[in-house]
Amino acid sequence: MTAPTDHTDATDPAQVDQAQSNGNLSQGRTLISVDAMGGDEGPAAVVAGCSLSAKINPDIAFILHGDEAQLAPLVQRDPHLGGRCDIRHASGVVSMDDKPSHVVRTGKDTSMWATVESVRSGESAVAVSCGNTGALMAISTIRLRKLPGVNRPAIAVLYPSANKNGFNVMLDVGADIRADAEDLLRFALMGASYARNGMDLKKPRVGLLNVGTEEHKGRAELKEAYDLIRAQEMEVGYDFVGFVEGGDISGDKVDVIVTDGFTGNVAIKTGEGTAKLVGLRLREAFKYSVLSKLASLLAYTSLRRLSVKIDPRRVNGGVFLGLNGTVVKSHGSADATGVSAAIKLAAQLAQNQFNERLAARIAATLPVEESPE
Amino acid sequence: MTAPTDHTDATDPAQVDQAQSNGNLSQGRTLISVDAMGGDEGPAAVVAGCSLSAKINPDIAFILHGDEAQLAPLVQRDPHLGGRCDIRHASGVVSMDDKPSHVVRTGKDTSMWATVESVRSGESAVAVSCGNTGALMAISTIRLRKLPGVNRPAIAVLYPSANKNGFNVMLDVGADIRADAEDLLRFALMGASYARNGMDLKKPRVGLLNVGTEEHKGRAELKEAYDLIRAQEMEVGYDFVGFVEGGDISGDKVDVIVTDGFTGNVAIKTGEGTAKLVGLRLREAFKYSVLSKLASLLAYTSLRRLSVKIDPRRVNGGVFLGLNGTVVKSHGSADATGVSAAIKLAAQLAQNQFNERLAARIAATLPVEESPE
Repeated sequence: MTAPTDHTDATDPAQVDQAQSNGNLSQGRTLISVDAMGGDEGPAAVVAGCSLSAKINPDIAFILHGDEAQLAPLVQRDPHLGGRCDIRHASGVVSMDDKPSHVVRTGKDTSMWATVESVRSGESAVAVSCGNTGALMAISTIRLRKLPGVNRPAIAVLYPSANKNGFNVMLDVGADIRADAEDLLRFALMGASYARNGMDLKKPRVGLLNVGTEEHKGRAELKEAYDLIRAQEMEVGYDFVGFVEGGDISGDKVDVIVTDGFTGNVAIKTGEGTAKLVGLRLREAFKYSVLSKLASLLAYTSLRRLSVKIDPRRVNGGVFLGLNGTVVKSHGSADATGVSAAIKLAAQLAQNQFNERLAARIAATLPVEESPE
Repeated sequence: MTAPTDHTDATDPAQVDQAQSNGNLSQGRTLISVDAMGGDEGPAAVVAGCSLSAKINPDIAFILHGDEAQLAPLVQRDPHLGGRCDIRHASGVVSMDDKPSHVVRTGKDTSMWATVESVRSGESAVAVSCGNTGALMAISTIRLRKLPGVNRPAIAVLYPSANKNGFNVMLDVGADIRADAEDLLRFALMGASYARNGMDLKKPRVGLLNVGTEEHKGRAELKEAYDLIRAQEMEVGYDFVGFVEGGDISGDKVDVIVTDGFTGNVAIKTGEGTAKLVGLRLREAFKYSVLSKLASLLAYTSLRRLSVKIDPRRVNGGVFLGLNGTVVKSHGSADATGVSAAIKLAAQLAQNQFNERLAARIAATLPVEESPE
C-alpha cells in the first residue's frame, strides 16, 4: 500500500468515504452498484475501471461492495472517485469455483450478493460484477426475480461483426443450457429491445441460429420458435430474417442472434478462441524474417488499430435480460479498460431506462400469445 | 473448349478413356471414386483437383462420375490424368438445394449416387464429393450402411488449432443434429481412431465439448457420456481430458473434440466466420494510410505465410465416420487446391486401411459396454 495522497485528510480513509451519504453521492447521477471482489485481477483493477469511467462520465457515481480494508486506500488515493464512490463493506467473496447453488444458500455476506441487493432495493440503477457468472445469475434470479412472462432469463453479449455497428447482439450465451420455443421467442423480444436501447437500432434484424437456413432444417423447438418469432414481427417491430448459421454471427445479415445458452456459449468461446489463434499465427508470421520484423514495425499502428477494433475488452459486458433489474456481467479477467467498458454499458442501459421498456414490451406481447403450448 | 492436346489420339476422347479398363487403371494404385458434378465451381475445378493430386501422388487413380460430354474433354487435355482416370457417365446431378429425402428416392441416376456405389461394390477404396452434404450423407448411409454398433454416423473435420499438428479432429459437425450418450462414446472412439490413422497420433487426447470444465456442468447426456468415455479410456488407449469448452477447439489441450452435430456445426461455422472477419479487419487496417500500405507490401510474404497456414482449402475434407466405407466430403466451394486436399486425405485414409481398423475398434468395444441403457 502506498502512502495516502494529499488531496484529502486520510487519517481514516474508510470513514471519510462512508461519511458521504448516498444523497451527496447521487446528486442526479446514475448510481452503479459494483462488486469489487469478483474478478481475476482483484479489487485494484475494478477500482481503476471505476476511476476511468468516472473521469469520462460526470453523470455516474458508484457504490462499491467488498473488503473495506482493501478498497478504502484504493479509492482514497484515486483522483476521480472523490465524492463519487461509496464503499460498503462485505466480508465474503464468491470464488470462480463456487457452485451457484452453494452461493445461493450461504453467500449472503458476499460482495456479489450485496451488489445485486443494492439494485433490488432500488438504491442503485444497475449492477456490475466481474465474478462467477453462474453464481451471479443465481443470485440475480433469486433476488431480482424474473419479469412476468419470462421463464428463462438470458445473458446477451455484443459479438464483433461486419455490421455497420461493428457488433451483433447474441443471446443466450449461457444463463441456461436449455431453451424451448417460448423461451426463444422471449430471447428475440429481449434481444430486439436491447439492440434498440443499447445500439440505437430502430428496427433490428433478428435471426434464429440453426444448422442451415432452410425452413425444414433443425430441431423441432427451432421450427416452432421460427413460427412464434415470425408471428410477433409486425407487432414488435423487428425484422425477422429467419434461420441463420454460425457464420452469420460475425456477418452483416442480422443484428440479433437468438439461440439457447448451450449453443451460444460454445459459439462465443469458439469465436474468441479462433480469433486468438489467428492473432497468434499473425505474430508468428511477423517474427519469421528480418524483413517481416521490419514490416511489423511499420505496420504497428495498423495492427494496433486492428486490435483496438476487435479488442473484446472494449465491448466487455454480458447483460442479464429478463429480470426486474439490470445486471452487467463483466469478463472475469477484465482489467481497468474492461471494467470501464462494462460500466459504460451499464450506465447507458440505466439512463435509457432499458429494463422498464423491456418489461413493458414483454408484458405487451403476453396477451397476443398464440403458441400451441 | 480448347483443341485436344497432342499427347493422345483424341478423335473420341471419351472412348479413349473408357477403353482403359480398371485393371489398367489400378495397377496397385489406390482407386478413388470422385463425384465430378457436385461442387459450386463445376466439373473443371474437380478435374483440375484430380490432376493436381495425380501429379504429386503416383499411387492413386480416379473413377470420375458425371456428364461424360463435359468430363471427357477436360480429362483428355490434362497432362497428368492420362491412363489414370476412368470416366463413368451419370446424367443426374444433385443440387445444393435438393432435400436429402428426395435425393434418396429419386437420385439413382446421379453422379453422387454412382460415386458412393463405387465404394459399396468394392471397386473404389474411398469416395470424394463436393456436393450437398445432407444428400451425400443420406446416400452414403443407405448404400454403405452403418458399422455394427454405430447408431449415428458422424462427420469429422480438421479444425485449425495451436496443437503441434496444427489441427484438431472435431466431430460431429453436422451428420445429425442429435446425439445421445452412446452416440457421443462412439464419436470419441471414431475420432480417436481418425486421429491415430489420419494424424499419426499414438495416444490422442479426447475432450467432450461443454459449457464449462467442471464435472457438474452441462446436459444430462453429457454427464452420462463423460462416464462412458472415461470407462473406455484404458481399453482403447486414448487420453480423456474430460469436458472442454469452445475456446479449446482452437487450443492445444486436446486432439479430438467430441460433440453433437448441431453444436459442432454451429461452432465450426462461427469459427470460420470469425476468422474471416479478422482477415477483413486486417486488410482494412493495412489500407488505412500510406505508411500502412507500405507496411503491407513489406509484410506480404508474412501475410501470405499466415494465409497458407490458416487456409481452410488445405485441410479441406469432412470425413463420414461410422459407415462400411470411407466418404470424404469436400467443401462445396472448393477450387482445385481444395479438391486436391480432399483427395489427399481420402488417399491417406484408404492406404492406412482406416475404415477396417475403425470397424475393428468399434466391434472390440461392443462387448465391454456398461452403459445403463
